[in-house]
Amino acid sequence: MIERHCTLMIPGPSEAATETQLAMAQPTIPHYGDDWTAMNHRVLEKLQRIFQTKNDMYIIPGSSSAAMEAAVNSVIERDTEVLVELSGFFGHRFREMVDSCGGKVIPLEVPYGKAIDPEEVRRVLKAHPRIKAMTVVHNESSTGVVNPVAEIAAVCREFGVLVICDTVSSMGGVEIRTDDWKLDYCLTGAQKCLQSSPGIGIICLSDKAWDYIDKRAIPIHGWFLNLKNIREYCVKWKDWHGHGPVTAPTALYAALDASLDLIMKEGLRERFARHELNTKAVRRGLEAGGLTLFVDDRIASRTVTTIVVPEGLDEKAILGIMKNEFNILIAGTPGNLGTKLVRVGHMGMTSNKNLLISTISALMHTMKKLGAKVDIGAAVETMLEIYGN
Amino acid sequence: MIERHCTLMIPGPSEAATETQLAMAQPTIPHYGDDWTAMNHRVLEKLQRIFQTKNDMYIIPGSSSAAMEAAVNSVIERDTEVLVELSGFFGHRFREMVDSCGGKVIPLEVPYGKAIDPEEVRRVLKAHPRIKAMTVVHNESSTGVVNPVAEIAAVCREFGVLVICDTVSSMGGVEIRTDDWKLDYCLTGAQKCLQSSPGIGIICLSDKAWDYIDKRAIPIHGWFLNLKNIREYCVKWKDWHGHGPVTAPTALYAALDASLDLIMKEGLRERFARHELNTKAVRRGLEAGGLTLFVDDRIASRTVTTIVVPEGLDEKAILGIMKNEFNILIAGTPGNLGTKLVRVGHMGMTSNKNLLISTISALMHTMKKLGAKVDIGAAVETMLEIYGN
Repeated sequence: MIERHCTLMIPGPSEAATETQLAMAQPTIPHYGDDWTAMNHRVLEKLQRIFQTKNDMYIIPGSSSAAMEAAVNSVIERDTEVLVELSGFFGHRFREMVDSCGGKVIPLEVPYGKAIDPEEVRRVLKAHPRIKAMTVVHNESSTGVVNPVAEIAAVCREFGVLVICDTVSSMGGVEIRTDDWKLDYCLTGAQKCLQSSPGIGIICLSDKAWDYIDKRAIPIHGWFLNLKNIREYCVKWKDWHGHGPVTAPTALYAALDASLDLIMKEGLRERFARHELNTKAVRRGLEAGGLTLFVDDRIASRTVTTIVVPEGLDEKAILGIMKNEFNILIAGTPGNLGTKLVRVGHMGMTSNKNLLISTISALMHTMKKLGAKVDIGAAVETMLEIYGN
Repeated sequence: MIERHCTLMIPGPSEAATETQLAMAQPTIPHYGDDWTAMNHRVLEKLQRIFQTKNDMYIIPGSSSAAMEAAVNSVIERDTEVLVELSGFFGHRFREMVDSCGGKVIPLEVPYGKAIDPEEVRRVLKAHPRIKAMTVVHNESSTGVVNPVAEIAAVCREFGVLVICDTVSSMGGVEIRTDDWKLDYCLTGAQKCLQSSPGIGIICLSDKAWDYIDKRAIPIHGWFLNLKNIREYCVKWKDWHGHGPVTAPTALYAALDASLDLIMKEGLRERFARHELNTKAVRRGLEAGGLTLFVDDRIASRTVTTIVVPEGLDEKAILGIMKNEFNILIAGTPGNLGTKLVRVGHMGMTSNKNLLISTISALMHTMKKLGAKVDIGAAVETMLEIYGN
């Protein structure tokens, strides 16, 4: 057992509910048989509602990155040109995957803290008519930016380009209309807004995406991250277990099943509104307290807020005090963004009024202690006012 | 939650201890920070002791098959010749992986129910001097056969051929001396003899295996199942989390940590002896009861016993009665083995005297009910005698 649990106000994994944790404590569930099949079906059906899709859902054991690579790997034939946006850390992860799968990366550089401009996408697609697919991160948790994926997907559609969309840190917290927005490969993870335990990726594919895969000239490389292979086994073993070729991580399915029940009970509208309100409270509170937000309201994430570290303060010292004195984990700057940031996650269970008031209070106190000029009272009062208290 | 739990007398997933289940019920553990790093280190160190290796261990999120493919994928450059033994279901899975990764399969056909003959391996390696690696399943849970991997690896060594060894259904239940036996890529899963929850693969590599990877001409395909990439991130992010590039399935690590503690507490010698004794009791009991074992004692698995379905009996009817009347799951024949079998797992927690006496009694009763001539009393008395009761 872990000695001490800190509250996970990080951009994932986020906190899970007791119901979710206890679901994993039940005896080991085999990955076949009636009870399993019923649970598998329940999980997939609830995921369809959250994704707002009519297409089949697939769970990829491993991680969200496994789902990212399953999409990339299934699209890329040798030297396939892929437009890869580089607006943050996970954009760069897509780049590594496309490269390593033998694709040709056509990069779209985006300054950190800014969103992708769909007109820029159009310009690149015009200049590179051989591009077959584009990777795009909906909610870049490294910068705290939301990219306009509906608009980007509309541009891609004009050019017949497939859209591989990462919604890892947003699905279940903000509205994503997978089918309406024509996101050909839409993928997420369990451990962010779906407030479950890490270890699985989730993906759904449009008919156009399947059509592309079915018409490939060269077979997909590999077996485990091969969406065609996964689909074939789901069909072939439908009556046996219906989840693909490998032993399913059944405890993680049970956890997700329980989490999805809580999400459905809350209601998607209510949930999205909660994430919206908490984002507003955090952002206005931080500003009232004298801190600088890294991104503009217009493109700000509803699940993670990025704060510029005040001049002269040490990022690691901030995280250390938050952890040691307040038992709260927040995150620092991933990769090399240039600007030093601290990041506060508010996704699923942690998009929570009480948790956010205490987190922002603790953060302000910590920065003050380290020498920054901040107004804790103004921050908290602003938050309470927004909450209507 | 699942409505009804049946005792998992199948060849995996096997039963987990309460300690293991409760470890997953603790609050979500982040995949970085001091507590995480300490747990990660503990798990890897205990795994080294079970694998009897001095080499670094790696946990591959996903499944045992993910670890199989990580090995295959990291070895195969275009048209690499790989000797693939086809003694059972998982041998064939390796074939699919080698094929799909662009390797050239040199098949070694082995009749189902027989073990690989190391002299046959020598013959094929002589005939195909371009073979770079061999895949071998130590414990073929589909047939109930143990392959002589120490002898096979010795032959491979003579020819400079790398050994990719699957110990998924044996590691932790029977002795496997990874380093002494020169198993270059030795891999397992968490959900069999390690009696933990499914969702991760485990692998360690010899210096020779790493040397091969480091000297490849063509980079490894992909990112997620790329052992070089995984090692690079483990080094690069050593101080941060030290487990590779992706979010770790932390609940599954916690479960494994708890399971490995129980294994260490029992002691490896004692554990191997227990698996040996239970295998003897099951096999002699079944024979005394009038049933036919599928494989000879000399090559019989210590974790799964395969029984020939008596003439005229329906395999599915047997499994159904066992489940419905006794609440016990056993397994049928996977794939197309020719002979109809039922399979009883006795691995980790289910290598247990009481569970096996009741399982064998229930199985005999079921077969009798369906019209087979069996002697339940003789079976049980034989088992009790072997147990010294």
